[in-house]
Amino acid sequence: MAKESKPLLLLTNDDGVHASGLNELIEGIRPLGEIVVVAPDVSRSGMSSAITAFNPLHAALIKEEENLTVYSCSGTPVDCVKLALNGLLDRQPDVLLSGINHGSNAAVCVVYSGTIGAALEGCIAGVPSLGISLTDHSPRANFSEAVKYGKTVAEKVLATGLPKGICLNLNIPNIPEVKGLKVCSQTKGRWVKEIQEMKMPNGKTVYWLTGEFMNEDPGNEQTDEWALNAGYAALVPLRIDMTDYSFLQKIKDWEN
Amino acid sequence: MAKESKPLLLLTNDDGVHASGLNELIEGIRPLGEIVVVAPDVSRSGMSSAITAFNPLHAALIKEEENLTVYSCSGTPVDCVKLALNGLLDRQPDVLLSGINHGSNAAVCVVYSGTIGAALEGCIAGVPSLGISLTDHSPRANFSEAVKYGKTVAEKVLATGLPKGICLNLNIPNIPEVKGLKVCSQTKGRWVKEIQEMKMPNGKTVYWLTGEFMNEDPGNEQTDEWALNAGYAALVPLRIDMTDYSFLQKIKDWEN
Repeated sequence: MAKESKPLLLLTNDDGVHASGLNELIEGIRPLGEIVVVAPDVSRSGMSSAITAFNPLHAALIKEEENLTVYSCSGTPVDCVKLALNGLLDRQPDVLLSGINHGSNAAVCVVYSGTIGAALEGCIAGVPSLGISLTDHSPRANFSEAVKYGKTVAEKVLATGLPKGICLNLNIPNIPEVKGLKVCSQTKGRWVKEIQEMKMPNGKTVYWLTGEFMNEDPGNEQTDEWALNAGYAALVPLRIDMTDYSFLQKIKDWEN
Repeated sequence: MAKESKPLLLLTNDDGVHASGLNELIEGIRPLGEIVVVAPDVSRSGMSSAITAFNPLHAALIKEEENLTVYSCSGTPVDCVKLALNGLLDRQPDVLLSGINHGSNAAVCVVYSGTIGAALEGCIAGVPSLGISLTDHSPRANFSEAVKYGKTVAEKVLATGLPKGICLNLNIPNIPEVKGLKVCSQTKGRWVKEIQEMKMPNGKTVYWLTGEFMNEDPGNEQTDEWALNAGYAALVPLRIDMTDYSFLQKIKDWEN
């Protein structure tokens, strides 16, 4: 089979190019096609869709094998995707996979997540894109179920594509045997108690981000938090168009 | 009037606490109530909803006048909002205003913008929130029309509030006399030609983010780009819930 006829899979993450979540995903999906990884050189969690406005990006080719090329990049996850699509790749990828993230990106985490930022970026550029996250922050988490579900959904996306402007957010619960896949909506909720004051050695006060998730819709069986807590992998379709069309109609009379 | 009975307005931006867009907004809205500013110490453009995960935040009180308190913060725009709501403020603000940004945040810029990241953050925390941007990147842009429209919309929001989970994105065109306000949807489009290669003095290749906006729906008079190009201020309601409910139904059969 000619190299060009294989599907091209672009991979990235926000935990950095050496994170085990990314590397276990690479191994799991190698049968699916040609893989190019462009991932941050170190962990860039919580970067959302941030871009590097004031500095240049550095990239280094760190691995080149049959059907696997790995670049490390000094930028954010979104920078990595932009650099891949506008420079490093010689053709448009058939799918973008972001992850597997160490830690949940369910509910409102989609707003802050670099993993999801990268998936949104692929989607904006017209690449069918999927973020994959495991609800375990440990550097040595067990990714076997997450790889299995990630591969299954990636195969679906490769086979059918995705509509323009929509990407997917897949979260997998941290349990030995996941019960199945649920298609869900983003849980309503927020983080609370988000700041912890601390004294530096010199006595000056500083503030650390912390907090706990407050589910504002805990009984709703359609949501990703419900599915995860019930032992299911949760798949949420996200859209780039953030317009609230219903409220738009309600404030039409603000026009002048 | 007791201090507590005045509306409390929380202000932030992504161009930094010394940017003229923020400071002209402060002057314009001082009649509306008590103002607390928590803004980045330097420009943090393009930070989206990024949060500072690996370092503490530093904050400094840099101005304290009658009904005006200004803090500078080492973090991202979203960090500033979290610090304000979880630490620096002694009550929930009645409105959050983010801006006035030097540069457009119309169309898909909502995804990358720190200005909008801060407005989304206020919204997540239950504060009626408005991002305000002028389509002029210049540090010495003329903000008079932007202040006028920003104040008008801020007064509306103070009077009526906003539904939970919805914030507003206001963009003002860079023209001497804006024709009026249009309530719009987010223009479909993307940035293209986003990477420019360059050689460092030592000969090594680096990559700068750049690019131009490609409007994928240029004739649509309902969109913010159309309104801005026609000389109107453009107001788009944005929602936190990114779920695409229509596509969710279409992939229900992916469940297993």
